[in-house]
Amino acid sequence: MDTLSIPNFSDIIDAAARIKPYANRTPVLTSRSLSSMTGVELFFKCENFQRAGAFKFRGACNAVFSLPQEEAEKGVATHSSGNHGQSLALAAKLRGIPAHIVMPENSPKVKVAAVKGYGAEITFCEPNQKAREQTLDKVVKQTGASFIHPYDHEFVIAGQGTAALELLEEIPDLDVILTPVGGGGLMSGTSIAARHLKPGISVIGTEPEKANDAWLSLQKGERQFPDTTQTVADGLRTTLSERTFRIISEHVDSIATVSEESIIRAMRLIWERMNIIIEPSCAVPFAAVHDKKIDINGKKAGIILTGGNVDLDRLPWQQ
Amino acid sequence: MDTLSIPNFSDIIDAAARIKPYANRTPVLTSRSLSSMTGVELFFKCENFQRAGAFKFRGACNAVFSLPQEEAEKGVATHSSGNHGQSLALAAKLRGIPAHIVMPENSPKVKVAAVKGYGAEITFCEPNQKAREQTLDKVVKQTGASFIHPYDHEFVIAGQGTAALELLEEIPDLDVILTPVGGGGLMSGTSIAARHLKPGISVIGTEPEKANDAWLSLQKGERQFPDTTQTVADGLRTTLSERTFRIISEHVDSIATVSEESIIRAMRLIWERMNIIIEPSCAVPFAAVHDKKIDINGKKAGIILTGGNVDLDRLPWQQ
Repeated sequence: MDTLSIPNFSDIIDAAARIKPYANRTPVLTSRSLSSMTGVELFFKCENFQRAGAFKFRGACNAVFSLPQEEAEKGVATHSSGNHGQSLALAAKLRGIPAHIVMPENSPKVKVAAVKGYGAEITFCEPNQKAREQTLDKVVKQTGASFIHPYDHEFVIAGQGTAALELLEEIPDLDVILTPVGGGGLMSGTSIAARHLKPGISVIGTEPEKANDAWLSLQKGERQFPDTTQTVADGLRTTLSERTFRIISEHVDSIATVSEESIIRAMRLIWERMNIIIEPSCAVPFAAVHDKKIDINGKKAGIILTGGNVDLDRLPWQQ
Repeated sequence: MDTLSIPNFSDIIDAAARIKPYANRTPVLTSRSLSSMTGVELFFKCENFQRAGAFKFRGACNAVFSLPQEEAEKGVATHSSGNHGQSLALAAKLRGIPAHIVMPENSPKVKVAAVKGYGAEITFCEPNQKAREQTLDKVVKQTGASFIHPYDHEFVIAGQGTAALELLEEIPDLDVILTPVGGGGLMSGTSIAARHLKPGISVIGTEPEKANDAWLSLQKGERQFPDTTQTVADGLRTTLSERTFRIISEHVDSIATVSEESIIRAMRLIWERMNIIIEPSCAVPFAAVHDKKIDINGKKAGIILTGGNVDLDRLPWQQ
């Protein structure tokens, strides 16, 4: 995207209609045990049951199906070793167009296999940001494919907002809505949807202390780029874009941060008490509630469980 | 129970009404990926999301709430190191009566903690069948508590049948319904419910090759007691009772057996593709479908996912 176009609520409504034939309407689960443990009435929107295993499919699907036919035929491209790559590959497959995914050559085999399984073309690159961008540029020039950024993209943000839309349709009397913050795509879409549907709702972002760029950026009033982002929550190592920073500055009430130990404990509690699989990044909002980093005792809180793509051979509490 | 009373469909309807205020109505999930992999349209009834983590709560709850007040006040008792013990403890807590659970002294700490967490009284015994039964007899004599057998019990069987009732209410056009077989309580209740609601449905039991007593018993026309039951599916090591054998002989079409490798592979596939946590015993029906041990290509099959109580520090594919 060349300009800083920012989606509004009607873009999210459009996205919901556009992705409806393809995306799962994921269930909202509750847990007596976790609600009583925290003193907060919790509603979990289970995007770990979304296609390709994460909410990212909503944004990728909306972006892919928004492309005019002529552009679409040239395919889509992105760099991602994670959920966005898989989601874009699946969305492209569903539209019947090529997907080109640039992945670092040290990507886990299981992730490479998943992207290949959806029929995407993989181009490997050295495992650093510069190589990723250069390789992607080359792929885009060669193929004419449209670059679909993982979060700095109007249609991606609108697509991510559809999870909050569904959650608030189902549980309209939420007092609070929480998401993790990585690049800010989900937080942006969620905040636009939630503010429109329920202006008085608290919209709260959560991130690891070790990747706290959103928290720092809101404090300073401009984007910050901390040196280290070595958190177990690997989906949250990215930093805000100017676009997501602006949206979050306008719509989000606050950002809470949590420790690594807290993330792993929260992840394990959700596995044990709810019998569902979530990835570390996904545990961050519940970690903030569990550790009372936010004062919402007795309130009704919606948490978007973002994804469930985990290496089952190496669980965080076993390392 | 002194006599071989066998529940009928109206007992299952009564059980459903009795446990309704306490039990979860668990969701039925589907998986595009597992259905396309097997060529069978699969519907998973998620009893791993049941209270206390397993379908066993249905039977325990029905038994506890069926007791006349005077008997109930003396409490309930059982021997179990597994899901039935936890379920009985929770059901007793909900009725406000004592629960006495006899557990082997080498029971995993996490299981002991769960039973204690529900407020039950634990009596430890040596880890063998004789010690379990003798200790239970003593506890029952001392307290006057009612013994609630894990499966050889009319009200327990009727309670277990409510899972199939809900599944067939939601997906009435199933061609096949599958459950694992351990002591046969779930299989019995399921078969009574399914045969009544849909006489032409195929009712299929599944068990580990290494604990194939139900398969052997149906072959021979009388109960068999194989020597070894050292399967990873620890919930299925028990053998049929005379009561469950009779019900299964009458109502079940066939029993399929699967290897240990197949059980572990099926468990992992469900974890990976559905992002839900199931225990090894719970993977047995899907293993049979995956391995084409049953000829149901193109059919609609309901699988009761029985439970999700797993030791997250020791997963079967890591041993």
